[in-house]
Amino acid sequence: MSALLERPAMDITSLFDVVGDILKTVRQEGDASLRQYEERFDHAILSNLSVTEEEMVAAEHSVDEDLKVALQQAHSNIATFHEAQRFQPIKVTTCQGVTCRQKSVAIEKVGLYIPGGSAPLFSTVLMLATPARIAGCSQIVLCTPPRPDGSIHPAILYAARLCGVTHIFKVGGAQAIAAMTFGTESIPKVDKIFGPGNQYVMAAKQMATLYDVAIDMPAGPSEVAVIADHTADPSFVAADLLSQAEHGPDSQVILISDSEDLILAVNEEISRQIQNLPRRSIAEKALSHSVAILAHHLEEAVAISNQYAPEHLILSVADYPVWSERITCAGSVFEGRWSCESAGDYASGTNHTLPTKGYARSFGGLCLDSFMRKMTFQELSEEGILTIGKTVMAMAGQEGLEAHRNAMQVRYDKIKQIKE
Amino acid sequence: MSALLERPAMDITSLFDVVGDILKTVRQEGDASLRQYEERFDHAILSNLSVTEEEMVAAEHSVDEDLKVALQQAHSNIATFHEAQRFQPIKVTTCQGVTCRQKSVAIEKVGLYIPGGSAPLFSTVLMLATPARIAGCSQIVLCTPPRPDGSIHPAILYAARLCGVTHIFKVGGAQAIAAMTFGTESIPKVDKIFGPGNQYVMAAKQMATLYDVAIDMPAGPSEVAVIADHTADPSFVAADLLSQAEHGPDSQVILISDSEDLILAVNEEISRQIQNLPRRSIAEKALSHSVAILAHHLEEAVAISNQYAPEHLILSVADYPVWSERITCAGSVFEGRWSCESAGDYASGTNHTLPTKGYARSFGGLCLDSFMRKMTFQELSEEGILTIGKTVMAMAGQEGLEAHRNAMQVRYDKIKQIKE
Repeated sequence: MSALLERPAMDITSLFDVVGDILKTVRQEGDASLRQYEERFDHAILSNLSVTEEEMVAAEHSVDEDLKVALQQAHSNIATFHEAQRFQPIKVTTCQGVTCRQKSVAIEKVGLYIPGGSAPLFSTVLMLATPARIAGCSQIVLCTPPRPDGSIHPAILYAARLCGVTHIFKVGGAQAIAAMTFGTESIPKVDKIFGPGNQYVMAAKQMATLYDVAIDMPAGPSEVAVIADHTADPSFVAADLLSQAEHGPDSQVILISDSEDLILAVNEEISRQIQNLPRRSIAEKALSHSVAILAHHLEEAVAISNQYAPEHLILSVADYPVWSERITCAGSVFEGRWSCESAGDYASGTNHTLPTKGYARSFGGLCLDSFMRKMTFQELSEEGILTIGKTVMAMAGQEGLEAHRNAMQVRYDKIKQIKE
Repeated sequence: MSALLERPAMDITSLFDVVGDILKTVRQEGDASLRQYEERFDHAILSNLSVTEEEMVAAEHSVDEDLKVALQQAHSNIATFHEAQRFQPIKVTTCQGVTCRQKSVAIEKVGLYIPGGSAPLFSTVLMLATPARIAGCSQIVLCTPPRPDGSIHPAILYAARLCGVTHIFKVGGAQAIAAMTFGTESIPKVDKIFGPGNQYVMAAKQMATLYDVAIDMPAGPSEVAVIADHTADPSFVAADLLSQAEHGPDSQVILISDSEDLILAVNEEISRQIQNLPRRSIAEKALSHSVAILAHHLEEAVAISNQYAPEHLILSVADYPVWSERITCAGSVFEGRWSCESAGDYASGTNHTLPTKGYARSFGGLCLDSFMRKMTFQELSEEGILTIGKTVMAMAGQEGLEAHRNAMQVRYDKIKQIKE
């Protein structure tokens, strides 16, 4: 079973040399190097790296009304769900005279990377910028590669304004990550970098963590697992598998079912639906290394899925509320036949930035917390010193840290002195 | 001001070659290589890498009663505070027919690294294992270097059992990180690695993130900032600064005050107290690159501290509840004259694994969340399809992802068909 579920190995370390050079160059040469890289990689000649107010206004006019309404509804749902994730401060008296608190504070400066390529990923703008704004990040910097004419797709700009992005720059690839890591004349240095990208962007993010910048999470190709029983609609399941397969030739698509009939029917539906897809050749490549697994029963199907730790998991089974409780490892779970992955990719309200490549074992998807930090506080009263003073002194003494012990001792002695 | 607050540069990339070799060797050769490294680096010849039940029982008998009582109280306070951090599941109807949920699930397998060296860091065992147990991690693996006679300090073993560690191994350094990253015949592969260590351990943790393992956070030398006004007790402040200075020659110690008299008095106290410290030469080295900053007023003092983003911040000022609210960037805050850092290092209940090196700008300290992952769930009813179906289809269509659009379309059509 493990072999069946093995993901293709991906080694970004081979890119560290070329990406390391880009990081070094941008660090030393700033904006000038960004302009050169943009000319070389994106074939765009830029006089100004930042998007102007005129471009923003023009974008607002050129996005069609249907898409605006859609972006607004998606934004509203994403905002509602992430707003509900607000952390309530905690205050606990751990023992007499000792009070501990925990509260959550926004990360001040965040950098969002939105890839270019064939499609304008305005949905990712919503997914990154909406929680950043709710968290209260004061600088929300967005970098995205320009088109050869030096412009940014208007829907990206419209989404960015809708969500409260504060700075938008026309820079892509590893050079964008470098710019947000070190800062340049135009682009502010940020505290944490978010967003998807190709392997160069991934490698750059990984390397950036060596230079006092945090990143959201490591990433690999996108994945879906579908657990389906005999009640599932084969046309729905086929459509869900294809929606993942069209992402890229390296996408992972897994069907797990206790019904052989269902698996056969889904395969038939896939053959039918794939005919009409514009991204058919990509989907075919992804499907060529995908698997359908016939499980003895749903219990086994769930165990297989938990072991695989899929980024997305669709539960197309009759008793989905029961089985959903048994899911211990997945990025996001889609419950029941009506819950397609694309609902969550765009508009249900959950975040679509999720752990791939088995990282669901150790990471959750992006959420409000990802844009905040938790700080702790403690206050000891005089009584608190008497309650835990001896414990602190005993432990510090035995760890051989005399000055640690003494910081408590001077206080302990003072209180004893006052009390006498 | 920025120059005053500059931290010494630390570049662990120079260690990547030697650490990369260790990772590769442990991955290929497993336990046998661990035994060789232990002989070479820790001068211990081990027949068995795991700690036996006899060793655990012997440890229990040899730890003195005062220390046991202290460890129990510290453990109880840490457990109380981290238990209070339990995440309550969230369930939100984002729009008609669309329900989103978020819940928190324990990371299954965690690895805790406890450094060796001059002092047995049993306090760090409490800080890592207590929240791991409360989170519900099913495998809690602890690696720590053996002493030359092949034994582990009994207080480490006692603390490990107290907190519910499930596996203890006698392995240290980069080889321990490698073992937990890849797994060996004896040592299980884990999902996330926690704990402090020297630069080799840090470099190994950083490299481990390339192999599907998560780590707690990057780390640098320990730090304290003290903001003190004229009401502060100079002997307390001096003791606090020294408790940080004794950690290591690279420790960062900063005093910020609006009172020149207080700064002078603290300096005098430091000269007095340092005489009696066993780790005096270490503390002197740390103090040689430390600074006291005379601020115009407390407002400025707080701004300086927020800019520096200290790991620990002690507020020894009269109005500390007011100023504490203004702190936006620090790992853990110690409020008022009685709250020494060593209280939090050992026993107040907060976690002592905190962001150093300015990482408080993007990371919080360890907390219950660090041992868990958040998963999201969404359920669409038929009504939900009608509510957000058009939005999803519009966005997917404009992003050029036809199969994404179709996964919604097949459901939308089915419902329209049912309704007719």
